[in-house]
Amino acid sequence: MSAVRSPFVHLSCHPDQVLWAKDEVPSLFNGIADVFHLDPSVNRTDFLASFQPGGPFEGAVGLFRKNHSTARIGLFDKELINALPSSIAWIAHVGAGYDQVDAGACKARGIRLSNTPHAVDDATATTSLYLLISTMRCFSKAERSVRAGLWKSQHSAAHAHDLSGKAVAILGLGGIGLRFAELVRAFPMRVLYHSRRKVAHAPEWCEYYDAGRLDEMLAQADALSIHVPLNEHTAGMVDEKMIRKLKKGAVIVNTARGKVTDEEAMMRALQDGHLSGVGLDVYPDEPNVDPRWLDFPNVTLLPHIGTGTLESAKALEVRALENLRDFLVAGAGKDLVPEFMQ
Amino acid sequence: MSAVRSPFVHLSCHPDQVLWAKDEVPSLFNGIADVFHLDPSVNRTDFLASFQPGGPFEGAVGLFRKNHSTARIGLFDKELINALPSSIAWIAHVGAGYDQVDAGACKARGIRLSNTPHAVDDATATTSLYLLISTMRCFSKAERSVRAGLWKSQHSAAHAHDLSGKAVAILGLGGIGLRFAELVRAFPMRVLYHSRRKVAHAPEWCEYYDAGRLDEMLAQADALSIHVPLNEHTAGMVDEKMIRKLKKGAVIVNTARGKVTDEEAMMRALQDGHLSGVGLDVYPDEPNVDPRWLDFPNVTLLPHIGTGTLESAKALEVRALENLRDFLVAGAGKDLVPEFMQ
Repeated sequence: MSAVRSPFVHLSCHPDQVLWAKDEVPSLFNGIADVFHLDPSVNRTDFLASFQPGGPFEGAVGLFRKNHSTARIGLFDKELINALPSSIAWIAHVGAGYDQVDAGACKARGIRLSNTPHAVDDATATTSLYLLISTMRCFSKAERSVRAGLWKSQHSAAHAHDLSGKAVAILGLGGIGLRFAELVRAFPMRVLYHSRRKVAHAPEWCEYYDAGRLDEMLAQADALSIHVPLNEHTAGMVDEKMIRKLKKGAVIVNTARGKVTDEEAMMRALQDGHLSGVGLDVYPDEPNVDPRWLDFPNVTLLPHIGTGTLESAKALEVRALENLRDFLVAGAGKDLVPEFMQ
Repeated sequence: MSAVRSPFVHLSCHPDQVLWAKDEVPSLFNGIADVFHLDPSVNRTDFLASFQPGGPFEGAVGLFRKNHSTARIGLFDKELINALPSSIAWIAHVGAGYDQVDAGACKARGIRLSNTPHAVDDATATTSLYLLISTMRCFSKAERSVRAGLWKSQHSAAHAHDLSGKAVAILGLGGIGLRFAELVRAFPMRVLYHSRRKVAHAPEWCEYYDAGRLDEMLAQADALSIHVPLNEHTAGMVDEKMIRKLKKGAVIVNTARGKVTDEEAMMRALQDGHLSGVGLDVYPDEPNVDPRWLDFPNVTLLPHIGTGTLESAKALEVRALENLRDFLVAGAGKDLVPEFMQ
């Protein structure tokens, strides 16, 4: 490769955040591009200034981005995207959900945006499975009972259920939803799903329900597991109406995005017993968790760590780095977000 | 059937305990035997007296027994077994573990003892899977972090691991161990196991390690899941020596019996980092939980509810009732405990 300077800027800029795939960077980029790591203490103004002529990142071609950078730099909203220099051609976002980046603004500027849609399928689906077991079996509640010195006095087998033989409805059969389907199939659970369209490569035991038959799916579901991305079509999708169509006593688990659900409606349904449990890894206003959640007995609460494993953290970063490297080498990278497919 | 009086006594005698399978009793025993339910408030002395000539249970042929009865009647130890009348021919114990009944004393008296070895396989294996996910992913710790208002500050992806691709060692490949193997195979995990002998009907992907190769198995295990019954051979089996043979950073989960493990040795190994997590549904001195467990960060604690689901509670009782019914009808019931096979 020539020595043409085609740097990219690394944005793993949460102060206490490591770059898991640090050891892989040289083998991926040596001879291909110069790699600059962002000072974790830089703010939004400094960050944008650094790309200006004479700045340390002048001429940067690509950006490697993690959500941790939001704490210092803010969202990759339209304002930030529009302020990037014209040299930037690719933003490699780390993670499946890319709602913190304005994909439309990127497209308008001709900046390609990739995510890492499948690197976290396994870790996230495992989290959904955990939340499903926890809520159906009342395990989080039971552990709080032990830790309060109450042994099993807070547990009633009458309210705990086996997963085997029950039906789970999956909202969104993308990579994570499909992986989740495989895991619950082991019990077996019956798997129903709704997506914008039937998933051609889904196994035949995944029963598809289109929009017209959504209520029919919900009425059969002992559990609803949410796996749609957050966008204008899905915001608030799991609302009062949808929740009330679920079988009485069903549970809802969500590892996708908090804003896909109406939290107030879920709480009302827990309160009056229409739902028997809720398991959440995500919330509408993270890192804030509505304190009322803490008072419901059969609720399991995780701090958005669905992808938080050593193996996944590394796999995610490696995939994003590869997307950027492929672009630098071949002019085309993988995992362009769906907005670029239209 | 003749109207010969062959009653059995029902011992679901914990005051707040319901008989889940109550509705099934008439269809199982009408025309076969009279069914007497024990007064939940009766104590050990009254219980034994009730079988004496002129007592309400004189001539009882069978006993249906749940561990809940221990609170009032005490263990079915040698003393109690020897004080039962000669009319008692069958004790149908509800549950897989029957360590609260002296099987040797039963055998010496000619009283057959059955358990319900497979009715709880699914529920218990699901509990093991939950504890495995919780400890490998640090989920219990993460939930405590959320509930303490600390969001994910207590979570580090560096210490959380995917199950997929890891190796789990199963101690005891009976019904529950085998069911657990099927569930973790979905990830997939590699499945190693040790039992007294190779399990002929186990799938070929379950890798057997005999006593001579036990250390070899442990050295490869990212997790150890305990599924042996408690008896003279297994008491204290998971001791300092065995724990130290596990791969550094492994987790241990136990849904079998607390006394199979040396709790002090597990705590020492957590303390010095040889183990990264422990998940327990069982304890040596239930319902007491050693308070030191509460102080370890990556420990998940359940109050012995591995079988505690509506479906399993009912299935367990129905199976025990069927064992008793089969004996009354045919003179031979199923699920005799292994002591009677020798």
